[in-house]
Amino acid sequence: MPRYKLVIEYDGSGFVGWQWQENGLSVQQVVEEAIRAFAGQHARVNCAGRTDAGVHATHQVAHVDLDRNWRTDTVRDATNAHLKLARARVAVLWAEVVGPEFDARRSAVKRHYLYRILNRRPQPALEAGHVWHVPRPLDAEAMHEAAQFLVGRHDFTTFRAAECQAASPVKTLDRLDVARTGEEIRIFASARSFLHHQVRSMTGSLELVGAGKWRPEDMRRALLARDRKACGAMAPAAGLYLVGVDY
Amino acid sequence: MPRYKLVIEYDGSGFVGWQWQENGLSVQQVVEEAIRAFAGQHARVNCAGRTDAGVHATHQVAHVDLDRNWRTDTVRDATNAHLKLARARVAVLWAEVVGPEFDARRSAVKRHYLYRILNRRPQPALEAGHVWHVPRPLDAEAMHEAAQFLVGRHDFTTFRAAECQAASPVKTLDRLDVARTGEEIRIFASARSFLHHQVRSMTGSLELVGAGKWRPEDMRRALLARDRKACGAMAPAAGLYLVGVDY
Repeated sequence: MPRYKLVIEYDGSGFVGWQWQENGLSVQQVVEEAIRAFAGQHARVNCAGRTDAGVHATHQVAHVDLDRNWRTDTVRDATNAHLKLARARVAVLWAEVVGPEFDARRSAVKRHYLYRILNRRPQPALEAGHVWHVPRPLDAEAMHEAAQFLVGRHDFTTFRAAECQAASPVKTLDRLDVARTGEEIRIFASARSFLHHQVRSMTGSLELVGAGKWRPEDMRRALLARDRKACGAMAPAAGLYLVGVDY
Repeated sequence: MPRYKLVIEYDGSGFVGWQWQENGLSVQQVVEEAIRAFAGQHARVNCAGRTDAGVHATHQVAHVDLDRNWRTDTVRDATNAHLKLARARVAVLWAEVVGPEFDARRSAVKRHYLYRILNRRPQPALEAGHVWHVPRPLDAEAMHEAAQFLVGRHDFTTFRAAECQAASPVKTLDRLDVARTGEEIRIFASARSFLHHQVRSMTGSLELVGAGKWRPEDMRRALLARDRKACGAMAPAAGLYLVGVDY
């Protein structure tokens, strides 16, 4: 029973998130159904980062155990053929055989997220659903300065969702870079793991710094408060992308 | 009666094209309706490049005559507010007052188009509807070499739609550059004006060169044939963007 590692891209707009849910279509469901359609078995597909509704991925990683030794090209192309038939905005970019010890979630040593802000007065037309539209001018350099207070090992209770199931609020944030390219502000976040809603919560507070509502040092104060109420409003799902997982 | 120049961005996916048509919603219609909603007048909006169904724009230019001297910020923001209400994937990026001699179409001295090809085996998930998906490997350097045979003043009958209404098939193509960035091949085309379907027709033939079905020199032969049948299959609308108009 070979195990396959899959790299998956998806547009999260039409999904309730990665994980199966009663109330709508999940990425996991369409991938499992595409695999069942070609392989004739219902295999569970486990991923590295369970993204929320509306969150995208350019590089989600998952693993699946299949009953037969399919060629990796076949796993990729046949799954994609059925995803296209289902009109799902999901594609398998890569498939490879891995050992039974490989676990997409537990073996991951680092996860990389990108958050995209479209910072201009007119709403997005081409990038609707793919960015957070912030009409007021943002100072990306101030946001970057504020972000550096969050890098390192901290208690991130301030930036944690109420429903977060992590055992501890202490995480090590390896990177939180903010840079402007034209009308777009891009936030890059890397860590071994994140709390639920952590990137979107940090982004919401960074936006307050960018708008001049907070000074960069206020980010440290918010962090040290260890209190959800010290956090700015959470940024929307549409701007968030899982862009890489290291093993 | 002041004249306004508008710069407009849109996702062409849900439209029958720029121009009003009986059979569906056009970009022109939603822009004119948004202007009517805030200005209370039905003003005709004339554009620089009448894009076809499914073709996008990051920088379409249009002009409109309004009865009152609205502030340019008001024209932009109020039109955008009504475009958002209509859930149209259209945004006015810029509005300015111009003289009565300015005509978005006739005053234009150069138009710039971009054609995006996603060149990888898996279908696009995030960029579906925004690129032409070509699974077979393409040689972008060969495509660029072939493209240079088309630059200059030529009879472009080979790359002209049957329904093209231009008086002459002779046009001067100023630039046709092909370059790869990762999985994407980008074709940049600039000219004072283009024949109907010219960029998509040239792109379809360039794809044949990229795939090795044509040698670069075959592009010259196709051009000299002055025959629509010498052209490769036309590339789809989804990959085409109007990205600039010079005055």
